[in-house]
Formats: sequence, structure tokens, C-alpha cells
Amino acid sequence: MDALRIVVQTPSANAHDWHAAVAAALPEADVGVWPAMPRRGGLSPQPSAAGGRGSREAAGEGSLAIDYALVWKPPADLLAALAAQHPRSKAIFNLGAGVDALLAMPALPADVPVVRLEDTGMAVQMVEYVTLAVLTEFREQARYEEAQRAARWEPRPRRRKAEFGIGLLGLGVLGTVVAAALAPLGFPLFGWGRTKKALPHVHTYAGDAELLEFLAQEHVLVCLLPSTSATRDLLNHQRLSALPRGASLVNVARGDIVVDADLIALLDAGHLAHATLDVFRAEPLPPAHPFWHHPRVTVTPHVSAMTLVDESVAQIAAKIRRLERGLPVTGVVDRTRGY
Amino acid sequence: MDALRIVVQTPSANAHDWHAAVAAALPEADVGVWPAMPRRGGLSPQPSAAGGRGSREAAGEGSLAIDYALVWKPPADLLAALAAQHPRSKAIFNLGAGVDALLAMPALPADVPVVRLEDTGMAVQMVEYVTLAVLTEFREQARYEEAQRAARWEPRPRRRKAEFGIGLLGLGVLGTVVAAALAPLGFPLFGWGRTKKALPHVHTYAGDAELLEFLAQEHVLVCLLPSTSATRDLLNHQRLSALPRGASLVNVARGDIVVDADLIALLDAGHLAHATLDVFRAEPLPPAHPFWHHPRVTVTPHVSAMTLVDESVAQIAAKIRRLERGLPVTGVVDRTRGY
Repeated sequence: MDALRIVVQTPSANAHDWHAAVAAALPEADVGVWPAMPRRGGLSPQPSAAGGRGSREAAGEGSLAIDYALVWKPPADLLAALAAQHPRSKAIFNLGAGVDALLAMPALPADVPVVRLEDTGMAVQMVEYVTLAVLTEFREQARYEEAQRAARWEPRPRRRKAEFGIGLLGLGVLGTVVAAALAPLGFPLFGWGRTKKALPHVHTYAGDAELLEFLAQEHVLVCLLPSTSATRDLLNHQRLSALPRGASLVNVARGDIVVDADLIALLDAGHLAHATLDVFRAEPLPPAHPFWHHPRVTVTPHVSAMTLVDESVAQIAAKIRRLERGLPVTGVVDRTRGY
Repeated sequence: MDALRIVVQTPSANAHDWHAAVAAALPEADVGVWPAMPRRGGLSPQPSAAGGRGSREAAGEGSLAIDYALVWKPPADLLAALAAQHPRSKAIFNLGAGVDALLAMPALPADVPVVRLEDTGMAVQMVEYVTLAVLTEFREQARYEEAQRAARWEPRPRRRKAEFGIGLLGLGVLGTVVAAALAPLGFPLFGWGRTKKALPHVHTYAGDAELLEFLAQEHVLVCLLPSTSATRDLLNHQRLSALPRGASLVNVARGDIVVDADLIALLDAGHLAHATLDVFRAEPLPPAHPFWHHPRVTVTPHVSAMTLVDESVAQIAAKIRRLERGLPVTGVVDRTRGY
């Protein structure tokens, strides 16, 4: 049997870090970087660096054989190569939790399973980001900053925490971990998911029928949903209006879940107090977008939870070893459901 | 035996809330507000509101008898009255955790025990404030705000958490609770106290001999010490210089622990990156103080942990009941130690 062949493709500047981590985690495999071909034990797989024997091998008969591909926003020719080699190509690992962009690609082979990254140090980052946003809101940090600019000593009465509901829209891995992290702070916690789910310390709601009732409880709504055909444009004028007056939105999921113009209209009308947005319909957020300079919007450049190379590669390597032994793995994407 | 007589004295605007809460928690007692005299079962003890029988009683023989006083920055005549009545006056309850101002009053009777407030909903507030300050620093929120003002999409590499030490200067009730709250976020935690103390997840140091070594570990130093003759001016140029370059200070304890001019000099020199200050040598912070407009200083008006009436009164009422049964209580101030 041929050696295991793995190809790594990422447009990010740290492609070499990914390659080196995969080669170290799976020393028995041939690991290459797309668009270079996989070469045996190669640690310098970029075409310009490969040279010599590796390059000649890459042009040989087995050069297109790929067992597993690790991808992020892959080019169509890589997907076409994987489709042509099925069933040798056994799985596509998406180098992120969100697979919406990948599933939308027409060239994605229908027969090759897609596996998404599960928590690999991303949950704790999400906990940090959401905790920071919730506490900034609860402690009225923006008002204190405004008072400081005017050198005004203005203590404000403490807000009633028992009335400061935090709503987690989406109760997957991240929503569950965020709920567990917020519970010790004493906020009333609410959660909404597609299907009913019981979580400690969280009053949960499920399905379309209970969405508006859920929204009516929240002082801060935290969006943690995947982007699917069912969630796109979910937070429109009607749904955002269901939040109580003075509520805030935190979006750490996907930009297309929120209807930008509706959010801005509700901020301008004073129905919503603030929005903390880490994700946008177009990224980078275009310089002319009104979010940048809106006084009630905090913009961060999609940094709430970054994919961490070592943790991600360890997870993928463990899954590849299971698949090679014929065992099932978690995180396989249900394409009907969209995540 | 006379009914239990309790007097409540607070300069705050919510004196009536305090009185009502004490009267409700100890219905068997006469509760009054200083400078009005205690009157039997009075719920409207202000001189103008008391009237009728209560007022006549207040002028009677037993009118100065006080078993327990609940005070905040008390006037000298109240302290003199308590001194004169000892041993009938059995304890002075300070309506805050910090007793430095009370202990500094010459009129404070030497024989009447002073009991400070222990955690009454203050610890969770401190957890909120410190968590917010630490995450703001770790997540480089100030840089993202600056980028937003310029409409610049500039994701920054994630800081290495393993190298982001958080130092808790003071390991009393608050320091202990703050450590427990920060532990799940994964920061390396260090703690310093007067005497050696073991805490889970915290590398602890003790005494003057280990202070500089402790300071050298911290990316964020959180001051949670009481103000005593041993801690006043503790954070001077020498000690603040022992923090690594780029470190930040959070002071939620007392303003006189920090030497303002030394802190500003180290911020200006770039040795320290930021200071988040909730307490000051003079409060309100004078309008001309350089902290207000310093670009690397965040000022909040002593709101990190506010005394909560209901929780505080429940604690004091429970202690009064124990004292009346001859049982010991916690939180009795050691005047030699200063807290």
C-alpha cells in the first residue's frame, strides 16, 4: 500500500506552520502543500523550495494521489482533483469551525466527507470575547469612558444583575462553553437552539415557535449560530425588535445572519443600545461601511476565535488515524443541515 | 432587659434604604438613624419624619443607649457616644470592607470591637471589574478601538496566554475569589500576601523578601491590598519598575498604595503600558489630576465593588444575633495589623 498522502492548502501567511505541524504530527505520511504536489517526508514542499528528487516525484504517476486534504477556502482545481480520486480521497478537513463557504462551492465533491474543526482552543477565545463584551455592557464601560473624557466623577448605581438576561443564540459546542463560563458571574442565562437542549443554569428555547419569546428576555443577545440557509438574515428588523428596548447584540458567528440595515435602523432609533460585531457580510469590512463609524457599534476584525495551528493539527491527526483504522469520527458535516 | 438598640449612620443618599433593611432584618430591635435617636420599631427615624411618641421617647433617659452601630465615615460625636456607653456598646460595624478611614479617627473607642464587612456581593463585583480589565488588556481592545476609529481592518496575532501572567497583590477574601474566577480562563496566576498562603492554580509569594520576584512575573498586576501603614506608597518607582516592560496595573484597593507621580513617570517612559484605576488618594479625583486625561490611564469613580444594602445587612444581622448569644464572629478588625 502507498504511504498516506496528505495535502495542506491555506491562503494564510502561516501555510508553512500548518505544513510543519502536520508533518510532525503524522511522520508516517507524505505531506505536501497545495498547489505543490505531496512529496515523501517533505518539510519544504513549496515548489520553489522542493527541488531535486521531490520535484521529479511530484510529476510522477502517483503525484495526484491524496488521501486527506486540509483546506481553507480551497481553489476549484484542488476540489476537482479530490473528486477525481474518490474513493482514495477519504476526507476533506475544513480548517475552521464554519463550513458555509466550503459547502457553497460547486466543485465540492459530493462523495468525500467534509469534517469541520471542533473546539481546538477556539472555545476559550470565544469565552474571552463574549465575557469581555457582556461585562463592558453590564458595567457601562462606555459611559465611564465618556465621563473620563470630560473629567467627570460620576458613579452610577449598579445595574440589577437579576434583570440582565444574556441570550445565547446557538447552543452548539461554543454556546455550551460560553454558557458554562458566564454562569459563575450570576447573569440569568437563556439559550435557543434548533432543537430542544437541556443545559445547566440555562433556560432553553427551541425552534421557530419559541424564538420571539426567547429574544424578549435578553439584555445582551450573543449570536453563535452557524451560517446556513435557515439562519441567513435571521436577525432582521422583526426579530431584533423583539429584544427589549436598550438591549445589545454581540455577533461572533457569521455576518450574514444579521441584516445590517435593520440593525443600524434599530440602533439609530434607540431600540438597541449597542452592537459588538466581529463578523461581517464582506470581510475585510469595506472602509465605507457605516458600522466603522457608528457611535453604538464596536468593530473587531474577525478575531474573536482564531484557529490555532498546533491544537487543530493534533485534532485532525487523531481523526485521520481513526479513519485509517475504519473508526468513525466526530465533526462530519451534515450537508443537508449545513454544518 | 432593654430592647436591642441599633443605630445606622451613613452619609450616602440611600440612608433610608439601610435603615429599612436593618429594621426588617432585626424586627426585635429598636433601629434609628444617627443623628436621630433610636426609637422603638421606628421605620421613619429621620427627625423630621419621626414625630409624636417616637420623638418624645428619643429625648428620654435611654435615648443614648446603643448596643450596635453601623457606620460609614462616622462623625466624632457618634464615636464619643459609643465610647461613653461601653460596655453596652458592643460592636461597631463598618459598612465597607476597608477600615483604614475609620481606624484613623482619633475618637474611635479603643474598647469597642470594629467589625468590617466581609464579602456581601462585593467579591463578584470585583471579579467582574478585574476580569473586564484583564481581558481588555489581553485582547488588546484599545488597539482595536484605535483601528476602528481609522476604519482599519487589522487583525493582530493572538497573544501567548502562557506568557501573560496575572499577579494578585493581596490574597484576602477578594484576592482568593478573583483567582478562582480567572483560573478557568487559563492565565498563569501569581499571588502575593503578607504571609505564605496556598491557593489552587496560583503560584504564591510572601513577604517583603519575595515581592520583587513576584512583580517580575506579571503582565497585569492587580492591587487588592488593604491600606495600612505597611502598604501605603508600596507601589512606588522601584516596585513598579520591577514589573516587566509592557505590563499594566489595575488598582481596585486604595489610592494611597500607589505613588501617582511614579506611576505616571513609568507610563510616560513606556515601561508600563496601561493603568486601570478605580481608587485614588483623593476622591472624587480632582478635575486637574493628570490621570483624567492620560492616554494610558482608565479612570472609574470607585465603582469596582459597591456595598450592597440587602446583602450587607443580612450579614450584619446574623453577626449581631451571634454576638447576642455570646458566640464569636468573623471580620473583627485587628487594629495592630490594620484590617
